[in-house]
Amino acid sequence: MTKKAVCLISGGLDSCVTAFIAKKQGYEVYALSFLYGQRHGKELSCAKKISKAVDAKDHVILTINLQQFGGSSLFKSSSQTIKNHELKDIGKTIPATYIPARNTIFLSFALAYAETLNADAIFIGVNAVDYSAYPDCRPEYINAYQHLANLATKRGVKGKKIHIQAPLLHLTKAEIIKTGVQMNAPFSKTWSCYRGEAKACGRCDSCLLRLKGFQEAGVKDPLPYAINLKRTKGV
Amino acid sequence: MTKKAVCLISGGLDSCVTAFIAKKQGYEVYALSFLYGQRHGKELSCAKKISKAVDAKDHVILTINLQQFGGSSLFKSSSQTIKNHELKDIGKTIPATYIPARNTIFLSFALAYAETLNADAIFIGVNAVDYSAYPDCRPEYINAYQHLANLATKRGVKGKKIHIQAPLLHLTKAEIIKTGVQMNAPFSKTWSCYRGEAKACGRCDSCLLRLKGFQEAGVKDPLPYAINLKRTKGV
Repeated sequence: MTKKAVCLISGGLDSCVTAFIAKKQGYEVYALSFLYGQRHGKELSCAKKISKAVDAKDHVILTINLQQFGGSSLFKSSSQTIKNHELKDIGKTIPATYIPARNTIFLSFALAYAETLNADAIFIGVNAVDYSAYPDCRPEYINAYQHLANLATKRGVKGKKIHIQAPLLHLTKAEIIKTGVQMNAPFSKTWSCYRGEAKACGRCDSCLLRLKGFQEAGVKDPLPYAINLKRTKGV
Repeated sequence: MTKKAVCLISGGLDSCVTAFIAKKQGYEVYALSFLYGQRHGKELSCAKKISKAVDAKDHVILTINLQQFGGSSLFKSSSQTIKNHELKDIGKTIPATYIPARNTIFLSFALAYAETLNADAIFIGVNAVDYSAYPDCRPEYINAYQHLANLATKRGVKGKKIHIQAPLLHLTKAEIIKTGVQMNAPFSKTWSCYRGEAKACGRCDSCLLRLKGFQEAGVKDPLPYAINLKRTKGV
């Protein structure tokens, strides 16, 4: 019987590569995405394209109103603007784009989905190298979630784990991109920019990390950017 | 400054007593409930009354579509009927009313809410004595969630915990009821029956555990029951 995996797909580059890793490892992919009050719909439309590209058996899109609590500049309802940082400062402190408990909520729904599917694994594209210092992207957090998952489920009580797989955890953005290239992950179907305009802004933290990764990997980013990349400081 | 606590209020007896314990301990109560696809709306209407009775500062009701995954006879969309058990068999195996990852999802939203409120605690009415063997009601599960919460949040990174409080964890149902009496918890505003009819059925697992508790505590349950209680076997 084919192994099943729930893959959290945001529409970004990391979760795209992660889903392709799951497929490469022989898992049948069940995609899970969220409409949670993000500023723009670009991510979700990319998530749909990626799920199709990875040949997902199903793609569940859940609506959850995280905006109701507030607490992040990434929400559509937020009056805060998204602040740009210098590349050298990203990862030093937790920025205003942090959404309280977001990965914990996403993983909890993935756990419910995995248990009803009788899936063996949950794949999540968190990364603790080229990242924004979000607490819920660290190795110790993933380990704690694995421990919780073992205790939280009927499957766990029977001694059968649902494995929390975070294959990008210790990779640099350049290594993630190289891994994606090997698997023909469709980078053109991904979106990283915090601002959901026609072209990626090239200036937000997420764009800066992405561009640095492509540059270091020696790979061309297929996305259009609103700025002249050659003249961008620090990229 | 007053301490704040997020209290998960389902509308049942246990979460009602738990919220009153939080208030007694000096917390400002922020109530959190879910419309998740349960069979009936009675629980939620009770949750509203309890939040008012406990003088909650706010009451957030989140809609989350757990039915989308299936996996439990407690869902409105389930074709399974709710099976009654003998009192002596309750707690021996995990029954079909178990909802995959439900408490994990509820606690994750509570964590998001607590973090945005800068709350010190989350109160949850789980109980591992007179209960239905749900894995996510056990002490080791709560400990694992505390560990996760410390790692998952911005507040945790700063060394300030959000305490997961489960004050009923080790109490019998009778002890929970006696505690509620001491605090004037309004039992008439609670609902435990899995079937949401005009009167409680008196036969489902949840009714049996409730009735046993009231009997052992020597307290009269103010709810109307569809059966003649004196003639009920095992109660």
